[in-house]
Amino acid sequence: MKMTFELDHIGVAVESLEQGKSFWEALGLGPMTTETVASEKVNVGFFELEGGVRIELLEPIGKDSPVGKFLEKRGPGVQQVCFRVKDIRATLKALKAKGIQLINDEPKPGAHGCQVAFIHPKSTGGILIELSQPPVIKGT
Amino acid sequence: MKMTFELDHIGVAVESLEQGKSFWEALGLGPMTTETVASEKVNVGFFELEGGVRIELLEPIGKDSPVGKFLEKRGPGVQQVCFRVKDIRATLKALKAKGIQLINDEPKPGAHGCQVAFIHPKSTGGILIELSQPPVIKGT
Repeated sequence: MKMTFELDHIGVAVESLEQGKSFWEALGLGPMTTETVASEKVNVGFFELEGGVRIELLEPIGKDSPVGKFLEKRGPGVQQVCFRVKDIRATLKALKAKGIQLINDEPKPGAHGCQVAFIHPKSTGGILIELSQPPVIKGT
Repeated sequence: MKMTFELDHIGVAVESLEQGKSFWEALGLGPMTTETVASEKVNVGFFELEGGVRIELLEPIGKDSPVGKFLEKRGPGVQQVCFRVKDIRATLKALKAKGIQLINDEPKPGAHGCQVAFIHPKSTGGILIELSQPPVIKGT
């Protein structure tokens, strides 16, 4: 399998979606759509850029959530970068074989019905990288 | 003018290009191409993702450079996000009129012969955002 990685979204930690959305609206983007991802204890606000990449604002549900901990430690800003892959299980297996440290060996449910898994920042040069496989593979 | 923003690249601060490139090569990307941007005191290594978005590894030339200061304060990771715009002067003017705090009121030369300017993280929710206008506008 040839692995392919396409930028899906940039995840931005915000104290609140209400507060965080103003900059993106000033760019003329929006309106923001929202979704709650219970497994990650996060409310997500989506803005789509020209070309289809999304900005996802991440508002923590509780301080013990991954985004809540990130905000406490680093403040608002880029918390994760997500790449769309065609076969997430095969990609995870291939990366693990190359010695890349994974947070999730198996995919789990994410936003938009995607299957997702995270790569540990220790292996990526300090970036929390999410891999995401859409529920239906898009044509190109 | 309708402003449009397309993701151009994600800038990742690294201690060295040699060290930083290994993860991206493990993804099967590359070979890395490089360029020095003297005005920013930085050596840049490029990897292109499926879909055309680039990952730019940023190796500081000296500790007093913007990327050198970032590394000292936050360690390796996402240092900036760059959006491609069609008319950078008009975009900067429009954003300023909306009260967005700019680092550069006027564009300056960046990598690949682009004209670039930065928006202050205070206005963006903690992200250093670069705007970039390519030397020749691409057809779509």
